Amino acid sequence: MSTSLCWHCPVCTVCNKVSGSVCSCGSLDPSLLTPSLPLYPPPPLRVAFTAARTANFAPGNLDQPVVFDQLLCNHGDAYDPRLGRFTCPAAGTYVFLFHALKLAVNVPLYVNLMMNQEVAVSAYANDGAPDHETASNHSLLRLARGDAVWLRLHRGAIYGSSWKYSTFSGFLLYQD
Amino acid sequence: MSTSLCWHCPVCTVCNKVSGSVCSCGSLDPSLLTPSLPLYPPPPLRVAFTAARTANFAPGNLDQPVVFDQLLCNHGDAYDPRLGRFTCPAAGTYVFLFHALKLAVNVPLYVNLMMNQEVAVSAYANDGAPDHETASNHSLLRLARGDAVWLRLHRGAIYGSSWKYSTFSGFLLYQD
Amino acid sequence: MSTSLCWHCPVCTVCNKVSGSVCSCGSLDPSLLTPSLPLYPPPPLRVAFTAARTANFAPGNLDQPVVFDQLLCNHGDAYDPRLGRFTCPAAGTYVFLFHALKLAVNVPLYVNLMMNQEVAVSAYANDGAPDHETASNHSLLRLARGDAVWLRLHRGAIYGSSWKYSTFSGFLLYQD
Repeated sequence: MSTSLCWHCPVCTVCNKVSGSVCSCGSLDPSLLTPSLPLYPPPPLRVAFTAARTANFAPGNLDQPVVFDQLLCNHGDAYDPRLGRFTCPAAGTYVFLFHALKLAVNVPLYVNLMMNQEVAVSAYANDGAPDHETASNHSLLRLARGDAVWLRLHRGAIYGSSWKYSTFSGFLLYQD
Repeated sequence: MSTSLCWHCPVCTVCNKVSGSVCSCGSLDPSLLTPSLPLYPPPPLRVAFTAARTANFAPGNLDQPVVFDQLLCNHGDAYDPRLGRFTCPAAGTYVFLFHALKLAVNVPLYVNLMMNQEVAVSAYANDGAPDHETASNHSLLRLARGDAVWLRLHRGAIYGSSWKYSTFSGFLLYQD
Repeated sequence: MSTSLCWHCPVCTVCNKVSGSVCSCGSLDPSLLTPSLPLYPPPPLRVAFTAARTANFAPGNLDQPVVFDQLLCNHGDAYDPRLGRFTCPAAGTYVFLFHALKLAVNVPLYVNLMMNQEVAVSAYANDGAPDHETASNHSLLRLARGDAVWLRLHRGAIYGSSWKYSTFSGFLLYQD
């Protein structure tokens, strides 16, 4: 006699009892006791970070990665605060946001949100007086596993303080 | 004798076997073999776009829709890059973000995020010198199916380049 | 005789019928008729607000909470427009965004996004001319139930109008 289980609720169709501690039917193929599908969809992956710059960042050379040194949140550990780089842990659609306050000097600030070695979006700030001003932008990006997203200081210098004016965030919106 | 199926796992209550290839009970109403509920909730709708302006936008007339010509992502195809308009595909709560860099001329920039013909939120940018400056804002909006969301250039002109300083994004946060 | 139910589809294992209107088996413990797990995971909590300032905010004293008076959306009623305060209804990861347009006077604007009594992130705006300029920033925050998130006007004054240049938003990204 063939036996079978309702494939996502383990009721034995021979003894008609719930499997596990209740089921006492010896005719069951043990492999059938493990349902082939999870009861619920797997919990979605959670990836979310905000990093801030708490000291000035003025590398002198063009096109340096901005290293945000203080983490406000790093769900999933995808942002590396030593390298200043987010590495995509799973394919999907991600949201990125950044704000960079320029030093109060007469040099314009150019910042790029980079996807690997390509410019995704950019931001600019300048001021007639030698004052601060914020360069900010955002983008949704469809990423593959392993893609790197980072902020590039093309030119200028970023002001940092414990009040965290300069920030970089990303989060997973939809997993593929 | 009435027959019935466990309504989301198709076990026949007469022959007590899993329906489909295993079930051999002739008394079943075939319509019962299709469970009335899906096993899992339907996958949530995915709507997410980022569009950028890669050429200057200086229409000359007041209150023109900003047409963002380059799509960085357009999950669900709800943003129309010819009209510069997002059309809501399903009722829910959506998040919108925009950044618009003004031309480096002595004209202030006024931008409105429009929900149909109403101003949702606005942004302004000006600079004492004839320099660039960014007008940006954001809003969460509860939308009905068919609502249009777009960016209106009330006054001024937007700078565009392949570095994508001027961007407009939206995504579905919670479907109703 | 012990009886049991398949725990997420209420099939009686004695009469072998679906419980509810179909089941007529008297041997069932009525408590078993209520499945111990929901069929689907409970719908996730929805928390999302955008509030705007429609009148100038110039309190004169330092470090006042900014009270945003007009709600564009307040899913979950977690933002209190009388106090200008978001109170976290359930532990999780939240996203906050703000834009504050300064009055067109020669006083710089300093704004802090506060988590309880701590500065999460900050924003600054100033202009050589007595003109408007926007102070904006954002942060993802991991919150516990009861945590308060609010915008603090450290110094300066915020411009308000029905065009809603000054806005504050938050939404639940991932519930813990």
